[in-house]
Amino acid sequence: MLGAGFVGKDGPMPDLARDLAAVVGETNVLVEPDLRAPFETDWTGRFHGPALMVVRPGATDEVAEVVRRAADEGVPIVVQGGNTGLVGGGVPAPGVAPLLLSTVRLTRLDQVDTAAGQLTVGAGVTLGRLQEAADRAGWTFPVDLAARDSATVGGMVATNAGGLKVVRYGPMRSQVLGVEAVLANGTVISRLGGLMKDNTGYDLSQLLVGSEGTLGIVTAVRIRLAPSQPEKVVALLGLPATADCVEVAAAMRRRVEGLEAAELFFQDGLDLVVRHAGLPAPMSREWPAYLLVECAGAADPSEGLFELLADLDLPEAATAVATDPAGRQRLWAYRERHTEAIASLGVPHKLDVSVPLDALADFERRVHGVVSGAAPAATLVLFGHIGDGNLHVNVVGPPDDNETVDDSVLRLVADMGGSISAEHGVGRAKARWLSLSRTESELAVMRAVKTALDPSGRFNPGVLLGDW
Amino acid sequence: MLGAGFVGKDGPMPDLARDLAAVVGETNVLVEPDLRAPFETDWTGRFHGPALMVVRPGATDEVAEVVRRAADEGVPIVVQGGNTGLVGGGVPAPGVAPLLLSTVRLTRLDQVDTAAGQLTVGAGVTLGRLQEAADRAGWTFPVDLAARDSATVGGMVATNAGGLKVVRYGPMRSQVLGVEAVLANGTVISRLGGLMKDNTGYDLSQLLVGSEGTLGIVTAVRIRLAPSQPEKVVALLGLPATADCVEVAAAMRRRVEGLEAAELFFQDGLDLVVRHAGLPAPMSREWPAYLLVECAGAADPSEGLFELLADLDLPEAATAVATDPAGRQRLWAYRERHTEAIASLGVPHKLDVSVPLDALADFERRVHGVVSGAAPAATLVLFGHIGDGNLHVNVVGPPDDNETVDDSVLRLVADMGGSISAEHGVGRAKARWLSLSRTESELAVMRAVKTALDPSGRFNPGVLLGDW
Repeated sequence: MLGAGFVGKDGPMPDLARDLAAVVGETNVLVEPDLRAPFETDWTGRFHGPALMVVRPGATDEVAEVVRRAADEGVPIVVQGGNTGLVGGGVPAPGVAPLLLSTVRLTRLDQVDTAAGQLTVGAGVTLGRLQEAADRAGWTFPVDLAARDSATVGGMVATNAGGLKVVRYGPMRSQVLGVEAVLANGTVISRLGGLMKDNTGYDLSQLLVGSEGTLGIVTAVRIRLAPSQPEKVVALLGLPATADCVEVAAAMRRRVEGLEAAELFFQDGLDLVVRHAGLPAPMSREWPAYLLVECAGAADPSEGLFELLADLDLPEAATAVATDPAGRQRLWAYRERHTEAIASLGVPHKLDVSVPLDALADFERRVHGVVSGAAPAATLVLFGHIGDGNLHVNVVGPPDDNETVDDSVLRLVADMGGSISAEHGVGRAKARWLSLSRTESELAVMRAVKTALDPSGRFNPGVLLGDW
Repeated sequence: MLGAGFVGKDGPMPDLARDLAAVVGETNVLVEPDLRAPFETDWTGRFHGPALMVVRPGATDEVAEVVRRAADEGVPIVVQGGNTGLVGGGVPAPGVAPLLLSTVRLTRLDQVDTAAGQLTVGAGVTLGRLQEAADRAGWTFPVDLAARDSATVGGMVATNAGGLKVVRYGPMRSQVLGVEAVLANGTVISRLGGLMKDNTGYDLSQLLVGSEGTLGIVTAVRIRLAPSQPEKVVALLGLPATADCVEVAAAMRRRVEGLEAAELFFQDGLDLVVRHAGLPAPMSREWPAYLLVECAGAADPSEGLFELLADLDLPEAATAVATDPAGRQRLWAYRERHTEAIASLGVPHKLDVSVPLDALADFERRVHGVVSGAAPAATLVLFGHIGDGNLHVNVVGPPDDNETVDDSVLRLVADMGGSISAEHGVGRAKARWLSLSRTESELAVMRAVKTALDPSGRFNPGVLLGDW
């Protein structure tokens, strides 16, 4: 551990920092507080803690060597990708002083195998660069989310990122053919061969997906791409109730080929967006609930959508459709600008939950009561990915350290058979509520697996399993 | 353990059998040799071993009670579904005398949630019944294989079954939203809530998929269905070389919407099928390699296929297309009747391998040399799922206990970066070759996970990890 003489890389360096500088290069061991600072606080500003040092290896064998040397010294490791997480899973907890291992220099980006529709990328490659590489090769990478220019592939694998197109393509898990990772004992496992079928035992790659850095450090990923779907149509529908949105989205999933997104929001959120962003109202009258859908195909995907819309026989003031890029973007703005419009009211409590589809309308009704009971003066704004039963619950008003609202909402979610974290993960933020979504048997298995792979608890202490 | 007085359920019963009869009912504890016999030999006749008794629980809590009581007595458990496996994973090894737990009475079949496109099924439900239930509800279950009337959902989950439509829908893994399972300590984990997004820790359901009964006994599964695709078109193409088949299949995957199957076979296999089944030749001339593709959609999917075929500009004698059911079945027969046509030559060594797509043509060339080197008089017939890089290597001639050919072919596969088991699993048949597809680090992790979940090694001893 660090002695009192530790003042940074220009002063007397502790042995570990000096050793690691020999592995990754001096400029990639950041010991001075001002160099470490950007890594020590998450982008929301809610999670922060000091790191012993920030180490940025540039290759898998360097990661392995860093892990081995940290283990020799008994130093825990926190892994960080693009630092865009929402649950504090990638920054140190106060009081731990871990080595913070940043994956941003693992930027391997192999050529796309255009026959197989696959490529291998380093954990530090951003989502945006991966999407561009896929597009250039005539394929597409179908996971998309707002943080695309910062979020890294490794972080997205570690958290099983979701986003807008899960209804068609599944989450990150579904795009991962295999991973390369460094384990807590410093060994490397590597499944980057791109085999589409491989039934030779436990799928360790899938075990690492969503494990939030607690079982291994993902260093590279073999990605499965999807065929390009350049023709798109977007429709925004105003409907009388949430239940109608659920029903129409379900009918679309069954009947309309190429449904890529099915999003839900409400009049209060729409009002906020219209005011905040200075947009015109999308329709000549207001509706209690809005369903935004996008369909995409190699050929024009609108026929099935138009047939279904004709069957629904909605009033004219309830439908807006766009096939041109500008028009599609205009409709998407009503949904996508929710986040910034909500932020303009204050720092929200962001809860990211899912419930079974047939409980979604009931949940939407009950959550209003629960929030106004727990915080009568709070503002509640809901929106989400209705195709996946995933709602983002934003509560503005209660101070950041007041967890009463969070607790009430998450208990409602659990009562209704839902998940307390649909896509953001558990991290440190939700660890105390994990038992709402997981039984004691399941937690026992998770702890057993953690013990099997990381017996000393060196990787991401406090994340996911709490004080395990 | 059984004493000398053990003669079956009508005579003096050992304590364990009597105890278990109280749990599952007397008629569901089979101790007499003739009642046990059908469970003790796999359907290929290659794997067999005596069981202490066969126990057929009818509910999850009965499974848990059986597991606990067997653990108390130190008796290992072999799990068996429809007994259609090809690698001896579901029958006792000689000399072990385990309790054989049959899942065939776990036949829960819940109503389809038509909005979500999901249902919950018991492990003992056959693939055929699951497909029918999905069809009746206006959805489809897209994993399909020849043993559909015997293979059970539980077995298909445990082995991550593949089949004909993996190129579009992925293997069994991709259809599993969650499982219910009994662990070696007798506790039950259950993820049947049907949540489409749930990032609350390690995905234990996915860990169990493909674990071949070594980590837990799957008792029920939450299944994700796919929209029905009633309109279909099938095309059989004759091509000059395997590499052409790879290239055309890849172009189809990228350009043709709704590609559901892309199958490969060769002139020697076709000759065998034509002779054995008394079919007319499919085309007016012969070709070195054949590519069979099926596309399906809610609407007619043939447009994209016909455009691609026009671009390929194949000779007339190289293309057969069918859109009507009888015609499609006629074309499929040339591929599907390979198995029985090969069996008419003798009991084949069946190797089920995959290689990266860009190595497939080279593998096809080299495997002929390897087989004729190892067994000059053998007959080699190849066919497979080219869309997944999965080839079934059938070698007729060498006696069943001669593993020279198997060893040579699997070493070639490993040299080329392939998998020694693409879809059948490892079982007992391939355990000795597992290290060809898995590094020592990976095997160490698998053993650690096995130890974490089944520390006494009670579940499926000898399967997958061998004498672990």
